[in-house]
Order: sequence, then structure tokens, then C-alpha cells
Amino acid sequence: MSPHPWRTRASREIYRNKWLRLREDIAELPDGRTTIYGVVTPGVGQCVGVLPFLNDGRVVMIRQYRYIYGEGHRWEMPTGGMHAGETPEEAAQRELQEEIGYRAGRFEWISSYYTSKSVVEETAHLFLGFDLMPSSLPQDDTEFLEIEAMPFAHVLDMVLRSDIRDSMTVTAVLLAARRLGL
Amino acid sequence: MSPHPWRTRASREIYRNKWLRLREDIAELPDGRTTIYGVVTPGVGQCVGVLPFLNDGRVVMIRQYRYIYGEGHRWEMPTGGMHAGETPEEAAQRELQEEIGYRAGRFEWISSYYTSKSVVEETAHLFLGFDLMPSSLPQDDTEFLEIEAMPFAHVLDMVLRSDIRDSMTVTAVLLAARRLGL
Repeated sequence: MSPHPWRTRASREIYRNKWLRLREDIAELPDGRTTIYGVVTPGVGQCVGVLPFLNDGRVVMIRQYRYIYGEGHRWEMPTGGMHAGETPEEAAQRELQEEIGYRAGRFEWISSYYTSKSVVEETAHLFLGFDLMPSSLPQDDTEFLEIEAMPFAHVLDMVLRSDIRDSMTVTAVLLAARRLGL
Repeated sequence: MSPHPWRTRASREIYRNKWLRLREDIAELPDGRTTIYGVVTPGVGQCVGVLPFLNDGRVVMIRQYRYIYGEGHRWEMPTGGMHAGETPEEAAQRELQEEIGYRAGRFEWISSYYTSKSVVEETAHLFLGFDLMPSSLPQDDTEFLEIEAMPFAHVLDMVLRSDIRDSMTVTAVLLAARRLGL
């Protein structure tokens, strides 16, 4: 039997900026007690990541400054938040064009999962991207990106030793390795 | 060359409860412009997950109500936030005892990664747990857990079809499958 659901008795917004919202709910537990529950929603609560394969088997990776961790030396695949009204595939196509200047002729969905453990509402949709064609959209003006095509085996190695630490990249690379038999 | 670092010009706390903090920084970009940056820190900003193997090859999974997604039917491995002063291994041992009533004779570290894309400060440390021995600690009083030992192959199958959606469980199961050659 699945665990009993909780009920939301009240909800109020604490904070909102362009990139995240925080609300505080009063939640009723299965035993009738109540607790406060802070819920953080980054953007629309959904994001995408694409591992983009060139025809020679290399993947296109990006590097940017990650403010929260104070570091800019780790590689990631293109990722980003979905916009309201977009499908995951549309968001994936837009992010590719904004971040690496390609669009994909074909996407292969590999996973949808919840990035964080309990207080952050964020579902990530992961794709492999194939048949890349040059096509650009303007970059987000707070992003400063470095781009490099790398052999997939090298990217997998960085994941296996936790040098790559971005959740979406880790998951997509491990799933891609299964499909490639690597 | 790695991307240029950003500078923090100012920082103020917006909200804090027992489980998360939110602060708003004024960050200076590499081109000298500034932007606000909201940073969410769940707990101490670090969490752990353990995939606990019984000697017969089954793994011990838990199920609880996940308030943010309004669902309680998805299985996860034991996970939880680190406490101040704990090492990742100590937190892993405590979570096992609180959530499934076992301690592990041996941990194998498999990954440390950043769960979320940009606005959440959360590093997850993942372990495989072996040589389990009965040992209990009281559960968190807002957790209502269901526990079941399952064949690893079944858990892997749930990950591959995105029925299991918890980030730490997805990553740990994929890494365990590599080590087991499955």
C-alpha cells in the first residue's frame, strides 16, 4: 500500500525573482499533525538537458561559471529551464541553439527524474541529440559559455571520477554509455 | 581557459526554516554588470544516499510520501541531509539506521555530484552499502516509511523506465549496474 498523502491547508508566497519562487505551505501529515513545508520552484519547475552527439561520435560540451559552487572548470552538457508553454523537446532544441549553435535533427528521450531530494520542485527531462545542424539563437545575457567537442569516452571518464558533477550530465552520460555498450 | 569568476557584492537572508535557507546576493558578472542571484541551501547543503545490498544481492528500498510531487508510489534508496559536523560516511550510516534499521559494515563511495542546475546549493554523496547488520535509530517524526528488499535487476529496470525518479537513486543504481556488469 502506498504511503498516505498529505494535505495542503494553506500556502503563501515568500519570495519570487526571475529564476525561482519560494512558498511556505502548512501541510497536514497522515496522523493529523501539521508542519510548515517550504517549496522552492526554479523557473517553471521543469528543465531539460541534451547530450549532443556529432556524427564522429564526439559530444559537444559547455563550461560556464557556476556561481553557487564558485567554480568554472567543470564541463556539462547543454541544460536549461523550460519556458512556460514549451514541450521538453522544444526546450531542448532552444537550449542547443542558444548554448552551442546547433539544432538536432533527432532527439532520443532517455529519462525524466526529480533532481532534488525534498524541498525543490524540479523535474529534469534528458535527451540524446543526433544529426546536429548549425543553427543559432542569441545566448542568455548572463551566460558566458565555453564550448568544446570531446570524445564520449573522455566525458564518461570524467563522470566516473566525479569531475563532471552536474546531475543531468551525470545521468545522461551513464544512460548513453549503457546504450552504446561502453 | 576557465570562465571568469563572479564576485559577490552583497548578500542578505530572505528566509530560513528547519529544512532550507534562501539568500539573495548581488553578484558582479565578468563584464562588470551586476545581477541578483537567489541561492537556496537545503539543510547544510550536502546530502547522502546509500544503495544497501543484502548478502543475497537484493537491495533495501523505501517508499514515502513526496509532498512536492504529491505522490507516494515511487521507490527510492535511503537518502537524507547531512548534519553539521558529520562526514558523508557518518551521515550515510545514520540514515541507514533511521530509515531501514540496518548499519553497513562497509561503504563504497561511488559519486559526489550537484543535484540541481543553478540556484540550489546541494552536493550529494553516493555510496553502496555492504555487510548490513540490524541496528536502529529513531525515525524522523515527519517521515512515514515503507520498506522492501528487491532484486537489484528489478530496481535497475525501474530506473531505466523512469519509474524511479529520485536523482540520487537513479545515479547510484546506474553506477552500481556498471560495477556489477549489468
